[in-house]
Amino acid sequence: MKRRAFLGGVAGLACGTAAAAAKKASACEGVEAALSGTGDLGLIVERADGSILVVNTSRPQVVSKVENLGDLSHASAVFSRDQRFAYLFGRDGGLSKVDLVSARIETRVIQAGNSIGGAISDDGTIIAVANYEPGGVRLFDAETLAPLTEIAAEYAPGVRSKTVGIADVPGRRFVFSLYDAGEIWIADCANPSKPAVQRLKNIGRLPYDGLVTPSGRHYFAGLFGEDGLAHVDLWAPEPEARKILVGYGKGEEKLPVYKMPHLRGWAQAGDRLLLPAIGRHEVLVADSRTLDEAGRIQVHGQPVFIVARPDGRHAWVIFAHPRNDTVQVIDTVALRVIHEMRPGPAVLHMEFTPRGHQVWISVRDADRVDVYDTQTFAKVAELPARKPSGIFFTARAQRIGM
Amino acid sequence: MKRRAFLGGVAGLACGTAAAAAKKASACEGVEAALSGTGDLGLIVERADGSILVVNTSRPQVVSKVENLGDLSHASAVFSRDQRFAYLFGRDGGLSKVDLVSARIETRVIQAGNSIGGAISDDGTIIAVANYEPGGVRLFDAETLAPLTEIAAEYAPGVRSKTVGIADVPGRRFVFSLYDAGEIWIADCANPSKPAVQRLKNIGRLPYDGLVTPSGRHYFAGLFGEDGLAHVDLWAPEPEARKILVGYGKGEEKLPVYKMPHLRGWAQAGDRLLLPAIGRHEVLVADSRTLDEAGRIQVHGQPVFIVARPDGRHAWVIFAHPRNDTVQVIDTVALRVIHEMRPGPAVLHMEFTPRGHQVWISVRDADRVDVYDTQTFAKVAELPARKPSGIFFTARAQRIGM
Repeated sequence: MKRRAFLGGVAGLACGTAAAAAKKASACEGVEAALSGTGDLGLIVERADGSILVVNTSRPQVVSKVENLGDLSHASAVFSRDQRFAYLFGRDGGLSKVDLVSARIETRVIQAGNSIGGAISDDGTIIAVANYEPGGVRLFDAETLAPLTEIAAEYAPGVRSKTVGIADVPGRRFVFSLYDAGEIWIADCANPSKPAVQRLKNIGRLPYDGLVTPSGRHYFAGLFGEDGLAHVDLWAPEPEARKILVGYGKGEEKLPVYKMPHLRGWAQAGDRLLLPAIGRHEVLVADSRTLDEAGRIQVHGQPVFIVARPDGRHAWVIFAHPRNDTVQVIDTVALRVIHEMRPGPAVLHMEFTPRGHQVWISVRDADRVDVYDTQTFAKVAELPARKPSGIFFTARAQRIGM
Repeated sequence: MKRRAFLGGVAGLACGTAAAAAKKASACEGVEAALSGTGDLGLIVERADGSILVVNTSRPQVVSKVENLGDLSHASAVFSRDQRFAYLFGRDGGLSKVDLVSARIETRVIQAGNSIGGAISDDGTIIAVANYEPGGVRLFDAETLAPLTEIAAEYAPGVRSKTVGIADVPGRRFVFSLYDAGEIWIADCANPSKPAVQRLKNIGRLPYDGLVTPSGRHYFAGLFGEDGLAHVDLWAPEPEARKILVGYGKGEEKLPVYKMPHLRGWAQAGDRLLLPAIGRHEVLVADSRTLDEAGRIQVHGQPVFIVARPDGRHAWVIFAHPRNDTVQVIDTVALRVIHEMRPGPAVLHMEFTPRGHQVWISVRDADRVDVYDTQTFAKVAELPARKPSGIFFTARAQRIGM
């Protein structure tokens, strides 16, 4: 085995930075363990405690714990390009940058009174947070969390809207919806101190969440106040919102809606989109090209999250209270349920390993995260966690629209 | 800022491993630089020298150099799940595991006389190498490179075929083609010491390369000895090969074929597949659902690589000698060339950053790798490299079929 740091003098090379550091590190006994990759890390939100567990998905194991992260109900996370840092968006307006390697909070700011989620720009330099109060999107330097600017969601003189459903799209852009205004805004942040905002008006009443497809092409907003969804083709020369899937999830025998489904709980699987039929024990299937309805699948309860295995061959579904102890697996070609399991009380979230060989499932009221083999459906590990909710792996750093 | 390693005694937790190491590390002055993420690393093959440059795509910069890697002509690379290690497949049958963080060769074996490429299983535990001599696929433990078993490509008693076009698909499987036999084999390596092999025969004459789509669903093999391509739908209950795109790239005024196009140089962009028309100055467009031809685009030369920007909105094309000083960019909706640039002599390879904000291009005879902004087409960096060929970023670890 050879080991040669490149110490030649070619202009423009920042030679040997990591290699030199590694050489120094290896002089420090025991430090080798710290020289690890970060591609297989992730985090589990412990909602009640305001803490996260840092996990390694190769072993699979809990590696460390980071506390004092504030109110983490409905918290979500995005990751730095190098997959070392997590950015956590708390409901209390807290934005925390956590170093997953050293298990410490790098920086933490309370950036608003009440926030709902965030995103990181395609080049990894800008963090955007969608706020309820004050209504708008705030931009931060991803390195330091220094504020860059605010896009106030002022849709009429002096009147601001709550913002929801924010997602990154290519070209240092973010797309989000204005709940009170019924608008979708596309913010080009090539100049992050002065974003150029395109406003799409009259997209429908009360958009409550939004998502983009993995290509960044299609943005969908769920409408609380109307039948159907708003859709924007971001590849169009002049993007505009149109109503799709009118009648979406409506039927004769409507059930009470226990929980608004997350739009992020949609699945794109091959040529199909799978989405929750609101208030019904059904998964709605749409053709991903025409966006027309292409079928319905009867399931165990009201779907909350439908998540495609990364290859799209299967989609896993979890349900609203009181039927939230169960997970079902759908064959996305045959469009039927092929497997069912009952992990335990209050199944809240699922995250697949990047190429989909395993899935992690949080079972809140069992204080446990279970890991399953997605081919055999066998449980391969149980990890203790206190009231676990969201699970997020660092490979999200490399995906569009997370 | 708080920093608390989790040292509680909950059973099953491997508490504080990384955090403890980090604490130790921070006691070692200057070692912090080694505590870095690996999500934004990559490598550039310096073909003539048998060396690689380790690069960081966030800065962008060359970080270090690793030498003594043997014959790297046509070399390719895959990455470990943690994105710390690269596995390099050399033409001389060499298989090298390189630590990108410490810039040293971890393990290196000469595993065959002549090999053409390799893959890593979806769970990151198995390295598979497709060999010409002796013909077949060898499996290795990804941790140690200890041999696991060999799948001899014996298609008639005592007669072995060269193997080509190997790709990983979900379920610890690999798919590859037998050049001499005209077969496609699907190897299920759930038990890696005894793989279960499914043989598809009579797929067409002389398959010279193969690829799978990003979902792992469709495998294509290019046929040297016939018109058309072989296609296998791996999601079918009983996968079988069928001939598609018959007449592919054929025409009245055939040009001499300067270089067989790489099948890996195909692009899937939204609903379309873009592929090189063999021996012509054209890109062929196929519908990704029906696989029927959907158009042709006139381009600067004979395409060698057509690579979709990760969102699929554009595809970048490089060409065969003697027209290999040029790059063209195709709008995948309008299906026309929208930009052209001339980086310099012998443009050999391109690699996009994971969400596509930049692209790295090797310009062999200028001893340079150029980095371009994919929105503005402006050159943002030039990195010196000796006769650079392939460029591979660690985010490939998280993609199916690389």
